[in-house]
Amino acid sequence: MTFSTPGLTGATIERADQIRVDPDRLVELMTFRARLLKMDGLEPQFDHNGGLAWGSLADAAEDSDLIFLGLDKDVPCFAEVRAGGTGDAGPANPRLWQGLMALPAEQLALYGGARSVVDWHMRHNFCANCGSKTVLAKGGWARHCLTDNGGCGAEHFPRVDPVAIMLAEHDGKVLLGRQPRFPVKRFSALAGFIEPGESIEEGVARELWEEAGIKVRDVRYVASQPWPFPSSLMIACTSICDDPALTLDTTEIEEAGWFGETDVRAAMVGDPDAPFIAPPPFAIAYNLLEHWLSMRS
Amino acid sequence: MTFSTPGLTGATIERADQIRVDPDRLVELMTFRARLLKMDGLEPQFDHNGGLAWGSLADAAEDSDLIFLGLDKDVPCFAEVRAGGTGDAGPANPRLWQGLMALPAEQLALYGGARSVVDWHMRHNFCANCGSKTVLAKGGWARHCLTDNGGCGAEHFPRVDPVAIMLAEHDGKVLLGRQPRFPVKRFSALAGFIEPGESIEEGVARELWEEAGIKVRDVRYVASQPWPFPSSLMIACTSICDDPALTLDTTEIEEAGWFGETDVRAAMVGDPDAPFIAPPPFAIAYNLLEHWLSMRS
Repeated sequence: MTFSTPGLTGATIERADQIRVDPDRLVELMTFRARLLKMDGLEPQFDHNGGLAWGSLADAAEDSDLIFLGLDKDVPCFAEVRAGGTGDAGPANPRLWQGLMALPAEQLALYGGARSVVDWHMRHNFCANCGSKTVLAKGGWARHCLTDNGGCGAEHFPRVDPVAIMLAEHDGKVLLGRQPRFPVKRFSALAGFIEPGESIEEGVARELWEEAGIKVRDVRYVASQPWPFPSSLMIACTSICDDPALTLDTTEIEEAGWFGETDVRAAMVGDPDAPFIAPPPFAIAYNLLEHWLSMRS
Repeated sequence: MTFSTPGLTGATIERADQIRVDPDRLVELMTFRARLLKMDGLEPQFDHNGGLAWGSLADAAEDSDLIFLGLDKDVPCFAEVRAGGTGDAGPANPRLWQGLMALPAEQLALYGGARSVVDWHMRHNFCANCGSKTVLAKGGWARHCLTDNGGCGAEHFPRVDPVAIMLAEHDGKVLLGRQPRFPVKRFSALAGFIEPGESIEEGVARELWEEAGIKVRDVRYVASQPWPFPSSLMIACTSICDDPALTLDTTEIEEAGWFGETDVRAAMVGDPDAPFIAPPPFAIAYNLLEHWLSMRS
């Protein structure tokens, strides 16, 4: 079993940061050549081949804001923030995933980044520092609280929330758990937001202590993935546990257990007799289990 | 040369997440036994041994909010958010570092985490979604926009902004650069915020492309560190560059160059004849250079 590239990575668009900060250049790029990623609020629209649907800037509503996504082979690409859109801080919905899973990797990655930024604008219209209305800036990669509008002058940037997602290993078995909202029989790696004042490695250890009551050592980074529900950076790690006795935080984890290599291999190939259903291939927990198996073979 | 533990890590306080979400338990802990981390706004106060100064909750101003930092050997520890405090989004100041560098590692880490959360409260009094005033919640690890106060009900959490900081290697030399605000002769690893829609590895490659005009491959994670100015998660990586021709973004980097092992070793031991001054030991760029040297010996 090889180690796959994490899902939602591999966008090929050139983000062209130097254009974002150049308002004149941005306006110059807003011509009939420019492309608009067609979205229904946050949901993607698909073309007849199942790819992401694109239109022109004429398709954007008059009161929409535009986000400059970057250059695709020199073609400027934008996304639309509809006025009055409410965003969505919730997890991915299964119906959406059916369309997304059919996308080529680079299109899925492009959509993920666009969704996170559009959602951030929809849920960040006001200045957290002073409560004034803010305006989109830097081609959509910032919002400004304008002093000539009675604001405080603060600059705000899209959030990226780092999340530790991790395996603990004890005696040749790995710890996997179920959140109450998971599909039946699905088990995955435990995860949680990294907090101010801790490293990735410390976040991994704290989360396993809080959620499963175990102490771990030798935390090792494996891979990372952006996760656009709404805007996490998933940071996947392994760790070693000496004492496997579990004490679950049942508000977070309804069930957890230690699974051996045979069980994990069966789940990863979709064996109906496997004791659990593996995380889907676009989730980095899948890559983490692939990695763990590859270390054992 | 060994690989040191990154600065600002190693806090020994138990964050005790289960207490944060239990308002009754929090009130029970606010007794004469509880300790208050003495801060002047965001600046630490020091005791006569140069350690962090602690007082009791009686030392907090009446209109301050309290943040539950956690349990230190069962003693509840709090920090104070002074009403009207303005926070500070700027970089570390050199005077502050003189006091911080003398702190034991676990005290520096504790202060760093407390500073980030206090600063976040000071600069996030309003709901980014609707503009209403928010209130401190979960022992200081959230703010709520209350609907019975005319708000939208949104929940907000302290920001942690992931930053890629990285070496590129070409032909046995590493790329280091100077930001305009650096002390004279100081060179360090290039760095930049990871954006929505990219992995750590993609962020590293994009930042080196934007800031130095080089393409890199084989990005490898090395270590991480929280950085409380105001609340970054520094993620240190190495990478390989095949074509060393530099095109600098001079708004970010005023000078950059490729440095060989002899030069880096001289700088790391503080040799006055070294061609540059190394980053300070509490910065993860220092650990990154230590790591790079250890890979070559």
